[in-house]
Amino acid sequence: MLRVFVTGGTFDKTYDEIHGRLSFGDTHVPEMLTLGRSRVELTVETLMMIDSLEMTDIERERIVARCAECLERRIVVTHGTDTMVETAAYLARHVPGKTIVLTGAMVPYAFGSSDGLFNLGSALSFVQVLPPGVYVAMNGTHFAWDRVRKNRALGIFEALE
Amino acid sequence: MLRVFVTGGTFDKTYDEIHGRLSFGDTHVPEMLTLGRSRVELTVETLMMIDSLEMTDIERERIVARCAECLERRIVVTHGTDTMVETAAYLARHVPGKTIVLTGAMVPYAFGSSDGLFNLGSALSFVQVLPPGVYVAMNGTHFAWDRVRKNRALGIFEALE
Amino acid sequence: MLRVFVTGGTFDKTYDEIHGRLSFGDTHVPEMLTLGRSRVELTVETLMMIDSLEMTDIERERIVARCAECLERRIVVTHGTDTMVETAAYLARHVPGKTIVLTGAMVPYAFGSSDGLFNLGSALSFVQVLPPGVYVAMNGTHFAWDRVRKNRALGIFEALE
Amino acid sequence: MLRVFVTGGTFDKTYDEIHGRLSFGDTHVPEMLTLGRSRVELTVETLMMIDSLEMTDIERERIVARCAECLERRIVVTHGTDTMVETAAYLARHVPGKTIVLTGAMVPYAFGSSDGLFNLGSALSFVQVLPPGVYVAMNGTHFAWDRVRKNRALGIFEALE
Repeated sequence: MLRVFVTGGTFDKTYDEIHGRLSFGDTHVPEMLTLGRSRVELTVETLMMIDSLEMTDIERERIVARCAECLERRIVVTHGTDTMVETAAYLARHVPGKTIVLTGAMVPYAFGSSDGLFNLGSALSFVQVLPPGVYVAMNGTHFAWDRVRKNRALGIFEALE
Repeated sequence: MLRVFVTGGTFDKTYDEIHGRLSFGDTHVPEMLTLGRSRVELTVETLMMIDSLEMTDIERERIVARCAECLERRIVVTHGTDTMVETAAYLARHVPGKTIVLTGAMVPYAFGSSDGLFNLGSALSFVQVLPPGVYVAMNGTHFAWDRVRKNRALGIFEALE
Repeated sequence: MLRVFVTGGTFDKTYDEIHGRLSFGDTHVPEMLTLGRSRVELTVETLMMIDSLEMTDIERERIVARCAECLERRIVVTHGTDTMVETAAYLARHVPGKTIVLTGAMVPYAFGSSDGLFNLGSALSFVQVLPPGVYVAMNGTHFAWDRVRKNRALGIFEALE
Repeated sequence: MLRVFVTGGTFDKTYDEIHGRLSFGDTHVPEMLTLGRSRVELTVETLMMIDSLEMTDIERERIVARCAECLERRIVVTHGTDTMVETAAYLARHVPGKTIVLTGAMVPYAFGSSDGLFNLGSALSFVQVLPPGVYVAMNGTHFAWDRVRKNRALGIFEALE
């Protein structure tokens, strides 16, 4: 059994056609799992729907608390890319003994050009086979939490030497 | 380094608008990797573009030969779902010591409702972390080659007890 | 008030993932109107769901009967492209005094690469402003029923000189 | 012969994945015409790429000047929805004797849920058959420039009584 915690991020941004801007509604994760015909046994739980630039330690503590107390030992966290690595470090310090994979998207799922479905398929797969630890799964690759950074100029995640 | 062998299947079917039917053109795999912003180092090689119901031992021998002789030890094979399990068994008998993951799609990538991008993200992830062996990766799950069958009535892959 | 008669054709073909082939289910027209945020007052009525190559005079008589007896004087007929011109001619002979626009698609709406939504927006617009007569609306253009043919080699509709 | 003037608006907004926000790049109109298999003879000319809330009389004068001086007598203008009606009124006062249709989208074309392709098919069709005048074509409907307003609360265009 697996748990997916939703926290928002680009992944889940949608277009608010009344106000003409990006915003958050319900998460797209269940729809994406249906599209992927996912047969993975899992529970999706939305913790918050925020831009990761607005994430503070208050939100991180909530993510930590839910990751620690849930029964599942394999967890995917969807997260904005800008502070994904910070949250990964926070989880690594506070939630030992579980396999936690953070993922997200560079382009909202609601856009035709989104990498979201690819990343979700990737994260769900890594989390099933990696040993306990905290990882970032983006661009088809996984990184240990302390071996990765987001290169904001290029919009990619890259390994720290 | 990873290699992706393309063999066709639903995954890569496209719509021939002149003749009004499904057919094969070039593979969509490179376009899908671009969409997924994949940063995985890999080479894509098209071996054939056929419906897996038309696959005979001649084609399977070709897949085996290329999997055995290529330098990469981690290989993804895109394949039609109908005989994916047969080809997996064939590979298991003839290509020891490599991690080979077969994947495909229930709906062509060119359709809006395709599971292809999710499955490709999944297969590329499993192949990077699983030990040597031959696996089928569909629906977010991986199966050892001798522990899976396609349930044609439901259109899903399921574990053999 | 406007009426849309659905007869099938490429426009409405969908992918049957159990059998791995194109088939017909329910029409996509209501979903397409929702996507287009259509505010046109209209009623959608499915007359049949068939490939237009299989259309005989029995089906054409049914289309004629419904076009003649419905109260609306402005009608869109969705239709397979292969015999769209034949049905247009049949309607022109049997349903005087109404504006009837036939449209369809070269690629099923369910495909990302479909021209269906463009053609539906076009046909609904032409039908609101053209004088009584029977027309084909494809590729952003309208043709009087006796001034058009489908060029099957190129997959386009073109004016007869 | 027809001319399409592009001015930006929601229609053409794209997602800037480096900065995580909506922005403008090149217009999507040529790609949309290709998708619609448009056979309409036309020239696309980008005048500006701006949000219509930022449009001032300086930009409107430029649109007027190009509409007046171009040889075509049938013109489509793509435009943000928020001030589409103001620009329509401006054109009506300054460009007599031509058929000008303004259109746009409630959701960017780059989103899967966009009404853009439907509206473009509609606008291109109305402009070919309506008499000289300035019109707004949205939601499958056309309105004379002085008989329409945008209902911002509902996100629709509606007829003025």
